[in-house]
Amino acid sequence: MMNSNSDDEEPKMSRLLRLAQKFNCFYLNGLVKGDCRPFVVDGQQVGLISQNVLEQLLKYPEVFCIKDAEQGKQNIVELNPAFRDYTERSQQVDRVLKEFRAEGVFVALKGWRNECYDVKSTTESLLKMDRSATCLFGVRNYGVEINGYVRHPTKGLCIWLQQRSDTKQTWPGKWDNMVSGGLSVGYGIKETAIKEAAEEASIPPNLIKNLVSAGCVSFFFESERGLFPNTEFVFDLELPEDFRPDNSDGEVQNFKLLPALECLERCFAPDFKTTSCPVLLDFMIRHGIITPENEVNFTQIVELLHVPLQSLYTYRTSKANGLNNGNGSIKNGRV
Amino acid sequence: MMNSNSDDEEPKMSRLLRLAQKFNCFYLNGLVKGDCRPFVVDGQQVGLISQNVLEQLLKYPEVFCIKDAEQGKQNIVELNPAFRDYTERSQQVDRVLKEFRAEGVFVALKGWRNECYDVKSTTESLLKMDRSATCLFGVRNYGVEINGYVRHPTKGLCIWLQQRSDTKQTWPGKWDNMVSGGLSVGYGIKETAIKEAAEEASIPPNLIKNLVSAGCVSFFFESERGLFPNTEFVFDLELPEDFRPDNSDGEVQNFKLLPALECLERCFAPDFKTTSCPVLLDFMIRHGIITPENEVNFTQIVELLHVPLQSLYTYRTSKANGLNNGNGSIKNGRV
Repeated sequence: MMNSNSDDEEPKMSRLLRLAQKFNCFYLNGLVKGDCRPFVVDGQQVGLISQNVLEQLLKYPEVFCIKDAEQGKQNIVELNPAFRDYTERSQQVDRVLKEFRAEGVFVALKGWRNECYDVKSTTESLLKMDRSATCLFGVRNYGVEINGYVRHPTKGLCIWLQQRSDTKQTWPGKWDNMVSGGLSVGYGIKETAIKEAAEEASIPPNLIKNLVSAGCVSFFFESERGLFPNTEFVFDLELPEDFRPDNSDGEVQNFKLLPALECLERCFAPDFKTTSCPVLLDFMIRHGIITPENEVNFTQIVELLHVPLQSLYTYRTSKANGLNNGNGSIKNGRV
Repeated sequence: MMNSNSDDEEPKMSRLLRLAQKFNCFYLNGLVKGDCRPFVVDGQQVGLISQNVLEQLLKYPEVFCIKDAEQGKQNIVELNPAFRDYTERSQQVDRVLKEFRAEGVFVALKGWRNECYDVKSTTESLLKMDRSATCLFGVRNYGVEINGYVRHPTKGLCIWLQQRSDTKQTWPGKWDNMVSGGLSVGYGIKETAIKEAAEEASIPPNLIKNLVSAGCVSFFFESERGLFPNTEFVFDLELPEDFRPDNSDGEVQNFKLLPALECLERCFAPDFKTTSCPVLLDFMIRHGIITPENEVNFTQIVELLHVPLQSLYTYRTSKANGLNNGNGSIKNGRV
C-alpha cells in the first residue's frame, strides 16, 4: 500500500522516499552543486551563503568580508573579525537586516519576528539574529516538536494534528504536528516544549508530566525564503482518549485526531507543512507503523531523517584551528 | 552524570560521544584516508577493499580485476564481469575464499560460518558469500536486534541483556542485546527476528506477538577482522516482569535484567560487544533515558547512530549508468 508506484522509471522509489527527498532538497541537490559559500564567524563556519544573498551582502563590505579563493583557501563570507563580541556582532548584523527589510529585497524578511535565534559555534553563542533571517545565512536551526498520540481501543494508534492559523508568517493554514516551536535565546529544550504545549494546545500540567524525549531528526530543506538546515528535538506525549487540545495563543485554527495511516496520507497532501513531515515519519517508524516490511526504501528514509548536518559546517580559519600557516581548511567529508 | 569528563582538552566530549566514535571508527578515520578501493560487481559498487585484502586478491586475476586509476577513473576492484550470473559469481568467489581459508591468510575466515549472506545492489542480489567473509570486502551487513524490556514498578525501565557463549566465533563471552541475528539468504526481516527470539531466548508466541518495529541504526566499524558497514533493524519487545529468557541453541551463557542506567554503564565496559552499543543507545534515546538535557553531544550522537552508508557506495561503471563514454564516475557526496 505504501509502496504503490505509478512511475515505471523508478519502480523502487516509494512515495515516502520522494517525500524524504523533498524535505532534503538542499541536502541532495543544492549542496552538491557547491554554489554556496561557508559563512564564517569568529573563525568558524556557522552557515552557508547562496549566490543571491551574496550579491546583497556585497553592499556592506564593512560588515561582511567576501573572500575569494586563493591558494589553499576556499571562497568564504566572513563576518568582520574586527567586531569584538556577541553584542557588537548582533548589532551590526541587525542593522544590515533592517535595511534589507526596508528595501524589501528578501521574501524571508517579510516575516520579521522580533524574536531572536542564537548563532552558535560548537562551544559558544557568537551572535543573535531575527528568527526570520537565519535562512538567508543557512544558519542551523533548532526546534522542538511534540507528537501527541492516543492508543484508541478501536482505531489503534491515533495522532493529533494541528492546522496552523491563516495569519502565521510561515506556512499559514497548513497542517502540522500537534505542538512545535523554535528554540529562542534563553530557553532550554524541554522548557520550550512545555511552554509551547501550554500556549499552542493548553496541555495541563498533569498531562505534560508524561512528556518523553524521543530523539531528534535532522534534514536540510530549501525554499524560496532560503536554506533550512533543521534539527528538531522530538518528544512523544501519550494523551487520554477524552482530552482535546485547545489553542490559547491564536496560532492554531484547528486540531484533529486521526488514525496513524490517515495521518501518513496527510503528509503527501499539499496542505501539509513540508518541514513537519520528518518528525511525523520518525514517530511512525519508532512506533511500528512504517516498517522494513511495508516500505522498500526503509533504511534510506531513516538515513534521510538524520542527515549529517554536523559534518557540513566544518570550515575553520587558521585562528580557530590554532595554526600559524594562515590557510583555512575545508574538511570535505565527515566530522 | 553522563557528561562527566576527566579530559581537560575535550571538555565538551562526553563518554557517549567517544563510544559513538568508537563504533564508527572506520566512518570517522579509515574512510577519510581514502586507502580503500570500491569493490564493483555488475557495474555497481557493493563494498570497499582495503590494501591488505587487495594484496591477496592480486593472486586471482581471473576472478578479481584490479583496475588502476586512469583519466576520469578511480582505482577499483571489479569482480570479473565475464561471470554471467548470481550462481557463477557466488561459486567463483567461494572457491577463492576457501583457498584463503586453507592458507590461513585472514583472521576473519577462521570464523567460517557455513552460512551465506547476499551481496546486493540497490535492486537485486548479485552473489552470496560466507558470512565470515563480508568484512573482507566491506560489503554492507544487515541484521536484526530485539530490545527486550520491562517497565518495573519500582526500578523503572529495565533492559534484558545476554552474555554470549564462550564458544561463539565472534565476540565470545561478551555482553550483548537480548536477541540479535544476521539476515541470511532467504529470510525476511521480521521473520529473522521472530526466529532468533525463539532460538536465543525462547520467547513464546504469546509474547513475541507484541514485537514492534522501531527503526534501524547504521554505523561503520573496523576491527582486525575487517570492515563492518552495519545496518541493524531494531525491534522493541515489552516483557512481563515474571518472564525469564532461556537459551535453546547454546549460543548464550547468561541473561540479566538491569535498570536502564546500569545497562548504559555496561556499554562502556570492555566486556560489552562494541557493535551492539548502537542499538542500546538508540533504545535509550527513543525511551527518554538519554536526552538533550543530560547529554551535551545529543545531536551528534544521534547522527552517529545513522551514518549515511547509502551515500558511501556510489561508484558506478558506465554499464550501470547506461552511458556510452566509458568513464566510471564517482559521486563524492550524497546519494
